[in-house]
Amino acid sequence: MPKLDLSQIATTGGSTYPGKLAESVEGRTSQRLGDAAGISQFGVNLVHLEPGALSSLRHYHMEQDEFVMVTAGALVLVDDAGEHEMNPGDCAAFPKGDANGHHLINKSDALASFLVIGTRTESETAFYSDLDMMVKVANGAFTFTRKDGSPLTADQIGDDT
Amino acid sequence: MPKLDLSQIATTGGSTYPGKLAESVEGRTSQRLGDAAGISQFGVNLVHLEPGALSSLRHYHMEQDEFVMVTAGALVLVDDAGEHEMNPGDCAAFPKGDANGHHLINKSDALASFLVIGTRTESETAFYSDLDMMVKVANGAFTFTRKDGSPLTADQIGDDT
Repeated sequence: MPKLDLSQIATTGGSTYPGKLAESVEGRTSQRLGDAAGISQFGVNLVHLEPGALSSLRHYHMEQDEFVMVTAGALVLVDDAGEHEMNPGDCAAFPKGDANGHHLINKSDALASFLVIGTRTESETAFYSDLDMMVKVANGAFTFTRKDGSPLTADQIGDDT
Repeated sequence: MPKLDLSQIATTGGSTYPGKLAESVEGRTSQRLGDAAGISQFGVNLVHLEPGALSSLRHYHMEQDEFVMVTAGALVLVDDAGEHEMNPGDCAAFPKGDANGHHLINKSDALASFLVIGTRTESETAFYSDLDMMVKVANGAFTFTRKDGSPLTADQIGDDT
């Protein structure tokens, strides 16, 4: 059945970020619409942000194009140029390799949602604009390091156990 | 600038369908959001359908996943299972190779719009469910034939010049 029943698609939280960085995306949940529908060439997620929540740490992708459309509520797009209001129907796109790190923040007092599409590639590297951190993705595994490839430090991720 | 100003993105009509078949998508216009934003791995179009207009002839893709979300107005998704109402926020997806031909029809008396995402591949074949027609796409050129590869006939496309 091509038409999706969004009420039947699981809403999941959590983060792949290491240590305390995972706390930065508390209040973010996602519905994996593309996976539910059986498409595989690009991912389609409907992301829900509670007041105060972030879509991600500010980042840019080296291999994957990304496109977002706000579907409900009000969000703020933050990139190298500053802050941009995003209301339902507003769109933004992030070509692979463009080193303009971006994320969305819900600065309102109501839930907000956006649709995000990203290419699926075998590997990926993404850089974080406001941290000395990058991630390499291969075979579904995420490896976070500093931008020179060395391990993240305890003061970065708060994991001193 | 990642955020798109939709008012500045051209709205274009027209069709690649041969002969009189092009008339079947009169009342359909599109804004090529992905192209305007410089992304290339998948296409993102915002399509506007006047009352009575079709998104396309009913078809399915062999190599390209496709995803749609209705953004304004009311549309009807037609597939092999029948008709399905689609309102703003409703989504549907069409995995490559799934022979369930589909299109959207605006049966309302107001303009309706939807966002459509499709993978960009070097080549593509699509089949039309309600006609003896297929299209092969290579290097940006569209070649329409009957499903056995033979030329379309004048009675199919009304081009008897």
